[in-house]
Amino acid sequence: MSDHKIVVIGGVACGPKAAARIKRLNPKADVTLIEKGEILSYSGCGMPFYISGEVHDHNELMQTPVGVVRDSHFFKVVKDINVYNRTVAEKIDRQNKIVHALKIDTGEKLEFSYDDLVLATGSETVRPPIPGIDLKGVNILSTIEDARKIKERVSKFKGKNAVIIGGGLIGIEVTEAFVKQGMNVTVIEKEDQLLKNLADPEISIHVRRELMRNGVKLAIGQTVKEIKGDDSSEVSAVVTEQETFPADIVLVSIGVKPNVKLAQDCGLEIGITGGIVTDEYLRTTDKNIYAGGDCAENKNRLTNEVIYTPMGSTANKQGRVIGDNICRRNTKFPGVLGTAICKVFDLTIARTGLTEKQCREKDINYVTVLTPSPDKPHFLPDAKLIIIKLIAENPSGKILGCQVTGYGEAAKRLDIVVAAMSHNGTVFDLENYDLAYAPPYSPAMDNIIVAANIAENKITNTGMSCTPAQVKEQIESGKDFIFLDVRSPQEYEMMRIEDERVKLLPLGKLREKINELPKEKEIIAFCKISLRGYEAQRILEGEGFTNVKYMDGGVVCWPYEKYVKA
Amino acid sequence: MSDHKIVVIGGVACGPKAAARIKRLNPKADVTLIEKGEILSYSGCGMPFYISGEVHDHNELMQTPVGVVRDSHFFKVVKDINVYNRTVAEKIDRQNKIVHALKIDTGEKLEFSYDDLVLATGSETVRPPIPGIDLKGVNILSTIEDARKIKERVSKFKGKNAVIIGGGLIGIEVTEAFVKQGMNVTVIEKEDQLLKNLADPEISIHVRRELMRNGVKLAIGQTVKEIKGDDSSEVSAVVTEQETFPADIVLVSIGVKPNVKLAQDCGLEIGITGGIVTDEYLRTTDKNIYAGGDCAENKNRLTNEVIYTPMGSTANKQGRVIGDNICRRNTKFPGVLGTAICKVFDLTIARTGLTEKQCREKDINYVTVLTPSPDKPHFLPDAKLIIIKLIAENPSGKILGCQVTGYGEAAKRLDIVVAAMSHNGTVFDLENYDLAYAPPYSPAMDNIIVAANIAENKITNTGMSCTPAQVKEQIESGKDFIFLDVRSPQEYEMMRIEDERVKLLPLGKLREKINELPKEKEIIAFCKISLRGYEAQRILEGEGFTNVKYMDGGVVCWPYEKYVKA
Repeated sequence: MSDHKIVVIGGVACGPKAAARIKRLNPKADVTLIEKGEILSYSGCGMPFYISGEVHDHNELMQTPVGVVRDSHFFKVVKDINVYNRTVAEKIDRQNKIVHALKIDTGEKLEFSYDDLVLATGSETVRPPIPGIDLKGVNILSTIEDARKIKERVSKFKGKNAVIIGGGLIGIEVTEAFVKQGMNVTVIEKEDQLLKNLADPEISIHVRRELMRNGVKLAIGQTVKEIKGDDSSEVSAVVTEQETFPADIVLVSIGVKPNVKLAQDCGLEIGITGGIVTDEYLRTTDKNIYAGGDCAENKNRLTNEVIYTPMGSTANKQGRVIGDNICRRNTKFPGVLGTAICKVFDLTIARTGLTEKQCREKDINYVTVLTPSPDKPHFLPDAKLIIIKLIAENPSGKILGCQVTGYGEAAKRLDIVVAAMSHNGTVFDLENYDLAYAPPYSPAMDNIIVAANIAENKITNTGMSCTPAQVKEQIESGKDFIFLDVRSPQEYEMMRIEDERVKLLPLGKLREKINELPKEKEIIAFCKISLRGYEAQRILEGEGFTNVKYMDGGVVCWPYEKYVKA
Repeated sequence: MSDHKIVVIGGVACGPKAAARIKRLNPKADVTLIEKGEILSYSGCGMPFYISGEVHDHNELMQTPVGVVRDSHFFKVVKDINVYNRTVAEKIDRQNKIVHALKIDTGEKLEFSYDDLVLATGSETVRPPIPGIDLKGVNILSTIEDARKIKERVSKFKGKNAVIIGGGLIGIEVTEAFVKQGMNVTVIEKEDQLLKNLADPEISIHVRRELMRNGVKLAIGQTVKEIKGDDSSEVSAVVTEQETFPADIVLVSIGVKPNVKLAQDCGLEIGITGGIVTDEYLRTTDKNIYAGGDCAENKNRLTNEVIYTPMGSTANKQGRVIGDNICRRNTKFPGVLGTAICKVFDLTIARTGLTEKQCREKDINYVTVLTPSPDKPHFLPDAKLIIIKLIAENPSGKILGCQVTGYGEAAKRLDIVVAAMSHNGTVFDLENYDLAYAPPYSPAMDNIIVAANIAENKITNTGMSCTPAQVKEQIESGKDFIFLDVRSPQEYEMMRIEDERVKLLPLGKLREKINELPKEKEIIAFCKISLRGYEAQRILEGEGFTNVKYMDGGVVCWPYEKYVKA
């Protein structure tokens, strides 16, 4: 009856997508899906929102948009896919093309022969060898079962103490969920910044502030030594070298690693990232075995380097591509840009492509832009600030990366850059995108277009600037320069950088009082967001000053201590 | 002192932008800006939001984001630009390179010589020769003065009747503003749909519904014959061939036309659209005269045709490009895509590129996708529906246009397509964009990626579909076919298309009851949003049915009468 036997191992995202795509392209295909858990095709990324209470019932995470639960029966009657859940694939016999599996509940041994095999075995949460990690109340968040356990414990200890070990994406999302459930939350991060893999420090600092604004306690740069328990083996505290944090529940979220045991055992190549190696058709080193989703490594389409960036979105896309290729469609997967986004209470933080740190490490000649401005015309009462950091190759203008944070519409600007980068777009291209404009949606010059304009100014040496970090370094080294604040006295009253080098001279007075400024001294101009700072630089240069810059992002983006009127 | 004399005519968007850019690139340039109105550099697009009350003070429309008013003094002391407001440019003497102008308040004649001249004379609102158009209370919305007059009258007639003549972008925005000010509003549109230039009927129908939901009365397909007044020449009613609408205030917004008199009088070429002809450097047929913003015509970067699409966003971008070119930077303006967006109460409607109607008129071989789905995972309580219509060339996959509407995040998806189209992107490219994914921002497979997937299915003949309009036509022609609703009985109870051809057979029962369906008859399957409809099509084809399609967008996108449970 069937001409093509396919076995798919892994039933969360990439696996079911591949299986369903195969059945749609070839309804006669004989497709079997093996999943070790109870539950199939669920939104793992939705789990923090179940813990927070925003999703009321965990079943909703497994339903189609119209409320149909994707269980074994659904896969059989709707998609004609044979599902074996609570079944562990134990071994792949590549020679005979057989998968050996074990049914968990009965101990029954099963064999599945295949023409093509899909590995979608996902990732597992890293469990570091911290003393006390096995105490009751210490959790990871990997499966829906984990999420249910966490939620149960949170209800029991409402108002008590939670400790999150690891300030990455999942740690931050669960922090918010715990706060919404009324817990006192402490985040312990061993690096010197939160979300270090996601963003540069002047962007991720806003996450730190937003967490503090919401009452979260932060222990940055601290390493956990031990988790302590009470007499009945219930967790009671987390101990770092500096402090002891009482804890009624602990989440360990220091990262995930690809689940590659099956692949490794049958001799498939594993890459330097730890993920399964695939080609651009998502084929492993065995031409009849494909791999996608969290178990496989990826190609960065910008740099062509291999990277490991597990994402539910990528897993779904790859499932489709694998389905295509198993049905002989020769579809290439172009790779990823390392895009990631996170909501932190009311704040968004997102990035795509390379961070500045990565550009520096790669010795790329680049310019960076840091531009804060309202996400729609400032005259609309619901306009909210977003800060864009855009990085472009110098002088080609090729966009290398973008980071956006703020309380306003950040995701749109980021995704526009994702699209641009998918076509090797430059800031010169971006400047003239005909983006959708009406006041409820954006300023007439969209924030991302302004960012591209500023990048162009820098590449063409029209706008000479330095970053807040560079200014800070100059200040700390005791260097003499004029730190020229060109805002109004009223603005200065409200918020200012306090340093003896700061001189207040409003832009409107600059031409008139230009003789007060020494031509031989370095001048770094700034304002609230850097537009007037740039204007000041151009005015001074026009008057023969030769050592003038402006500071990116103005006082709004100054991430260090500053005076703010209470 | 100066090496380069530039005169800019027009002080709203393109003009001030060009002037400021020139001064930044060349601080020694001698720049003069002539504006006939009192006010400079204001957000004309913000006026409806001033009328609605969202912007409290019209001065906010003229301020920089940090609250500085952009008046003549500001332009002089900050930007060193000589501003002549309330000054009308009357004649351009191209031979001697002189602009002759008149100071309105004093009657003084002025002459400005130039090396380069910028025409940014904007557009004017069309005033059709309707009897009664000069009555008191009949307004156009072109200047801030107009906006103030309208707002004053609205305050006076709160709770009374307003009539909007013209259901285009501005008409719709002001409709919302009037409703927010407590008026009873009627919109009269002579075409058979609102926003006809913006979107295809199955998209713009949602605007019609949203207006009605907000108590707006619609008179679609009606032409105004006369505006009636009372004894003191105050407007009292608007009369169409069918009806008479009482009116205490009327807004006439049937369109704008480029302001080209100056250009025409001095012999510059005017195009078939009525706008000033420019080359890709935005130079007119005189190499020392540039034109941009609403007075100039544009190139559609997709089709290379000339179009007239006045937009504040374009005006600003063009001002910058003109500034570059006057400073010898040789910057090209690549053209526009005809992007537009409008907020209608809680609904967004937006489009870029070509509509289906335009594709049909151009005899392009295309596929269209109509896909409704929540803008983030359905399990999040704030997920809201958006409907995407994506149009791609067949079989190249090149994206030709996109329309998005709905209560959810529509602008982001549209702008992603704008970016794609700016690079001649295809749906095959779009399918694998590494867009930012986390549940608060999008489903794992973003709506726009799903739309690209569906387009690919159609191009590869995997998904065979027809539009609601095609089905409606078949029904009306009395054609026999099975209109297969594959939803659950519960869903059918809530909402359904009522026709004798409709047969309910839930997807989960389809394989089991497949023999109930005749193989020789045409079958058009559908569900709520068309995912299960597509699945049904593939299942039936797998079982040897040869004449099966699904209907785009499912019952959600059925724009005709349907049963909805109260």
